[in-house]
Formats: sequence, structure tokens, C-alpha cells
Amino acid sequence: NIRNLAMEKVASTVLFPCKFSTSGCQVSMLHTDKGDHEEVCEYRPYSCPCPGASCKWQGALEQVMPHLLNQHRSITTLQGEDIVFLATDIALPGAVDWVMMQSCFGHHFMLVLEKQEKYDGLQQFFAIVQLIGTRKQADNFAYRLELSGHRRRLTWEATPRSIHEGVSSAILNSDCLVFDTSIAQLFAENGNLGINVTINMC
Amino acid sequence: NIRNLAMEKVASTVLFPCKFSTSGCQVSMLHTDKGDHEEVCEYRPYSCPCPGASCKWQGALEQVMPHLLNQHRSITTLQGEDIVFLATDIALPGAVDWVMMQSCFGHHFMLVLEKQEKYDGLQQFFAIVQLIGTRKQADNFAYRLELSGHRRRLTWEATPRSIHEGVSSAILNSDCLVFDTSIAQLFAENGNLGINVTINMC
Ligand SMILES: [Zn+2]
Ligand SMILES: [Zn+2]
Ligand SMILES: [Zn+2]
Ligand SMILES: [Zn+2]
Repeated sequence: NIRNLAMEKVASTVLFPCKFSTSGCQVSMLHTDKGDHEEVCEYRPYSCPCPGASCKWQGALEQVMPHLLNQHRSITTLQGEDIVFLATDIALPGAVDWVMMQSCFGHHFMLVLEKQEKYDGLQQFFAIVQLIGTRKQADNFAYRLELSGHRRRLTWEATPRSIHEGVSSAILNSDCLVFDTSIAQLFAENGNLGINVTINMC
Repeated sequence: NIRNLAMEKVASTVLFPCKFSTSGCQVSMLHTDKGDHEEVCEYRPYSCPCPGASCKWQGALEQVMPHLLNQHRSITTLQGEDIVFLATDIALPGAVDWVMMQSCFGHHFMLVLEKQEKYDGLQQFFAIVQLIGTRKQADNFAYRLELSGHRRRLTWEATPRSIHEGVSSAILNSDCLVFDTSIAQLFAENGNLGINVTINMC
């Protein structure tokens, strides 16, 4: 017990380097602060931003776009600040992800529409935008997702996520555009749902 | 069987008066069309528009506002096209309704926020606007409901319902502003949720 207390005393005063120091991070901190820092450390490697977590790729931010272009060739890219993200066959059963890229302001954004069956009998759709970039870069933008139909409109406006944090926690907390099957059907045409996506600088 | 066929033949050619003919409806129609007409007949009496169906009052359109003022005195009214509908204690358990009146353009609108527990563990909020008026009158307006928070905004725009059709079918079909507890908490302050309501003429 005496030795443990001594160790704790040492650990509470000694500064440790970030585990990404070999990647360039120069931050040193108390042991108790390491977890929080390393979670958001800008030198932490980026994971593949494709939803579903089936791709295990990790690498530097600069390598993300080359990875997507090489390994995920089926993803469509549209140019411009104001585009339509068309999700086809939204009535497909089970969990489905729709993904597309939008390029504007010299950046690449990944648009994600995810259908989940969280509750018995209730299918929910989650739509969100993430920047292929850092959190700081993401804070310079705002995005708008809009469903538009006959005398009806549903709009969600927010700050894009950085792919460094990803979208899963936002989807878990409904911090995105959330709608159920009834709403999807109100706005869909022939089983396809068009989501108007607008990116702004702020 | 022969007699039934004969009766059917008669019923398929004879015109019947609407069951609200004593209230002034002059429409006559085939037996097979009666149900559809009487559902939307403008002479059908109005029911009390308060959600929850606990009040069984029925009467003419002109009597709805006097009824509300006499029998539902706790309902607050705000004047103006652009007001804040403040729902207090949104974390209250179980099914809860919040109601308020908005007066503008010489008309009265009833704002309804309903919390339901439809699915195991999922509480959903439904917000909608109905006009104390006919369907034709309601078609002249549009409403916008907006939740506004830190770098986030959720907006629903639609045509108000007439109290003659009511809001229950719209809520059942999610044809209104729908959000879950996570979203409510994102936008609430101290357990209270402010919904910006704007009415426009169109
Ligand atoms: Zn670091
Ligand atoms: Zn990948
Ligand atoms: Zn009639
Ligand atoms: Zn009543």
C-alpha cells in the first residue's frame, strides 16, 4: 500500500508524452489527461470515413482522399455548394447506408444517409455531412439538408463533423437530420429520396 | 338473393341527401359516396380541437373560440405572426400535450406539441399547427416550426391543418415536426423547449 501511494504520487506529477509523439505530437501531460487528449489529438491517424466500419484502413489526412478514390470507387462525387443527394430504393429492408461525395470551397465532404431499425417496427433515417479535414477546418463550414415536397419542407442546419471524430456519435445522439419511414415516403418519388445539400462557409 | 340484387340496383341509382342536410348541406349523392362526402362535409359539426379527446364538445365553427375561452381557460394566447411556443418540463414522463393559441391575420391558430411513447424506450415529440377555421381557409396559410440551438437548427414548414380534420392523422403519419428526446435535449434549456412559430399567408 505504501509503495502504491508512492507510485500514484509520482504518476500525478510526472508528464508523459502523447502516444502519437512519433507522428509529430509534442504535447506532454499528466497520466490522467492522456486519454482525453489522445482521443482528439490531431496526430491520431484518420480512419476510413465510410460508414459501416467494414473498412479497417487508417492513415494520414492527406491519404484519405487517395484511399477513397482507390478503394471505394463506387462513391459518386458531385461538384458545387448546392447539390442533390439522391438515395435510391429507400424502402430496401434492413440497415442500409447511402454515401456520396460533394466537392466545394476546395474541400471534399462526405454525405451519409443511414437507415437503422433501432426500435421494434420503427425504421429511422439519419443524414449527416462530414468534412474530409480536421475539426478546426470543419468549424469554418455550415451545411443544410433539406427535404422538399408538396407544401412541406424539413430542414436541418449544422456544422459538419470532421472525419477525425466521425459521425457515429452524432447519429447515436440524433445530432443530425433524423426522420422515419412515413416522412421518407412523404418526400420520396418512385422510391427514391432526394436530399438537397448546401454547404456554406461561415 | 333476387331481392338483394334488386335493392342493390336501386341503391346504385337513387340519390341520397347528406346527413348534414338539416344543417344546410344541399349535396345529394349515391349511397356509395355518402361516407367520403360526410367525412369532409363542411356542414359536419366541429369537435373541440384540444388534443387528447377528453372534451366531447361539438358545435359550429363560430362556437369553437367561445368554447375554448369558456371551457379551456388555461390555454395561453400570444398575438403576432412570429412567436415562441415554450413547452415547459419536456422531460415529464409518459404522454403529455402542450397547447397554446396564436392570433394573427385575423385568425386563431392552435399550436400542439404532443409527446408519445410509441416504441419501447423511444419517446417522440410531434409539433403541429391547426387553424380554427375551414380547410379552404387553412390552405391560405403556411407555418414554420423551428428549433434553434448552438450552431444547429431544425425547421419544419407546412400548411396548417383545419380543426375540421384535426391533427391526429397527421401525427400518426409523421406529417408534422417529429423529433426524439435526444433532439429535444439538444435544443432545450433548463428542461424547457422553445419552438419558434411563424405563420405566413400564401
Ligand atoms: Zn497528441
Ligand atoms: Zn476505406
Ligand atoms: Zn354534406
Ligand atoms: Zn373542449
